[in-house]
Amino acid sequence: MRAVALGGGHGLHATLAALRRLTRDITAVVTVADDGGSSGRLRRELGLLPPGDLRQALDALADNNGETLWAQVFRYRFGGTGALNGHAVGNLLLAGLFEVLGDPVTGLDEAGRLLGIEGRVLPMSVEPLEIEAEVTGLENGEVSLIRGQVAVASTPGQVHRITLRNPGRPGQPPAACAEAVDAVLSADTVFLGPGSWFTSVLPHLLVPELHDALVRTSATKVVILNLVPQPGETAGFSPERHLDVLFQHAPRLKVDAVIADRDSVPTPARLRRAAAALGGRAHLATVAASGVADRHDPDALAGCVREALGLTESEREGLTWR
Amino acid sequence: MRAVALGGGHGLHATLAALRRLTRDITAVVTVADDGGSSGRLRRELGLLPPGDLRQALDALADNNGETLWAQVFRYRFGGTGALNGHAVGNLLLAGLFEVLGDPVTGLDEAGRLLGIEGRVLPMSVEPLEIEAEVTGLENGEVSLIRGQVAVASTPGQVHRITLRNPGRPGQPPAACAEAVDAVLSADTVFLGPGSWFTSVLPHLLVPELHDALVRTSATKVVILNLVPQPGETAGFSPERHLDVLFQHAPRLKVDAVIADRDSVPTPARLRRAAAALGGRAHLATVAASGVADRHDPDALAGCVREALGLTESEREGLTWR
Repeated sequence: MRAVALGGGHGLHATLAALRRLTRDITAVVTVADDGGSSGRLRRELGLLPPGDLRQALDALADNNGETLWAQVFRYRFGGTGALNGHAVGNLLLAGLFEVLGDPVTGLDEAGRLLGIEGRVLPMSVEPLEIEAEVTGLENGEVSLIRGQVAVASTPGQVHRITLRNPGRPGQPPAACAEAVDAVLSADTVFLGPGSWFTSVLPHLLVPELHDALVRTSATKVVILNLVPQPGETAGFSPERHLDVLFQHAPRLKVDAVIADRDSVPTPARLRRAAAALGGRAHLATVAASGVADRHDPDALAGCVREALGLTESEREGLTWR
Repeated sequence: MRAVALGGGHGLHATLAALRRLTRDITAVVTVADDGGSSGRLRRELGLLPPGDLRQALDALADNNGETLWAQVFRYRFGGTGALNGHAVGNLLLAGLFEVLGDPVTGLDEAGRLLGIEGRVLPMSVEPLEIEAEVTGLENGEVSLIRGQVAVASTPGQVHRITLRNPGRPGQPPAACAEAVDAVLSADTVFLGPGSWFTSVLPHLLVPELHDALVRTSATKVVILNLVPQPGETAGFSPERHLDVLFQHAPRLKVDAVIADRDSVPTPARLRRAAAALGGRAHLATVAASGVADRHDPDALAGCVREALGLTESEREGLTWR
């Protein structure tokens, strides 16, 4: 199975950990709109792609479940109280590779070789992008515009819609990473989510060429929902509301399967209807890790993906036979 | 030939570049008293061995003359105007390795593997050390104490003697890196210099176990003198004065050969006498790179080393026969 997973941060890490149990041919496509933490500092200082989400995806695909020396070094964050505090060594190394090679795709391939990863990590765009969100609830009923991933992810207001800006080329649409477009078009299965919905998942739909590829690809499309609503950007969002928002940002996108944790879905019938509206079927299972809030169990998630793909495949065959 | 080269900075880089033309079995033993630049910042922030001189030694031994991707990345310094400005990526990576492994020797071996080096790079001590210098000429005839490599290397006064302090264990002598002691004891030839005499070359003689190893080893000992006196610490020093200072800091050390650039020696007879006083012979040749001030030509230096070793070997045989 050629699998492509789009997302960012911990959510993408969870999907990749599950997919490694199913296939070796995995391409991670990663958001590049982060402006917080170590990534944000590197981005502001050097004008580079924010490396943190890319590093996390490499980590998820690293040899030996990330226990090799280089995986540990990549993940290690400097302490102290000085200028390096909080920088992950892998972020600094990716920044160095990007600058020396002048090309993040080759840089990520080289980092992947060092880490012995199975699969490939690609940025959704080779340009650092900026999220802009329409938010209500901040100034009596007015719609406010908020810029930047950190601001959007932590807003006390209600996010309605996001757009992606290209600060390096104002007015131009964000350009997709060509290799990411190719990966989506030639995939057997494409995964979207889980993760911060507005800041890690939906941005992929706002890169026009990537959006088109997701609409055009013959791959099975699977959406994996979050376990709990994100404090801030999706506080109070029901599972079906997540799908509604997805539809708003990509009305032409059809989805084959929606995976959700059984205990995170208060009204399964509503979720099934929302999934059907996108052209797909909801798969409810226990995929949360026991004892850890907001973390998927990779084995359970892999099992549910297998089941979801099996079901959709047999349905497809059924359609072909009839 | 098992060669060990002790030094730091550009001087050690020059020796290593020459030795690579003669043997593959090279161990670099590197000063760890730097407190300037990227190294000094890392040392102050994280309490680690200053990595810059170690990185330069790795660079000199790197595969394909340092033109591989990882060698370029190691050497690359961040620009910008922020907190990372001037940090070499290799310094940050070494810092990460040292912290994750808790052991600089293993960290250097891993970095060496990544760079495909021939040979090994070791610190002279696994603890960051501090240079203290007795200097005159700053306050009418008084002896001043100056601390720190940068301060000593750039003093307008005259440096007379240095000592090494162990800031991590005040009052304790600096502990040698055990692997460096072993390398000196099992070497065929040991090289000292060129380089900043007081801050990169002599410190090796002030680590007691390393000093003893240099005195006890049966290896041929070769001193390579600088091309021009260092502004600051050795301004106005003649070649023979360099040897006098060496003798002051290590009276029991015998030297077999002293290599100097012909054009940098105003009075060859004096240098020959100073070399003889250390038990060795002076070898004068054109070893400076043409057109570049203060840089050795690696091929010329290798040729002179070959000649010097040939001579000292036949002299030794002569001594044995008689």
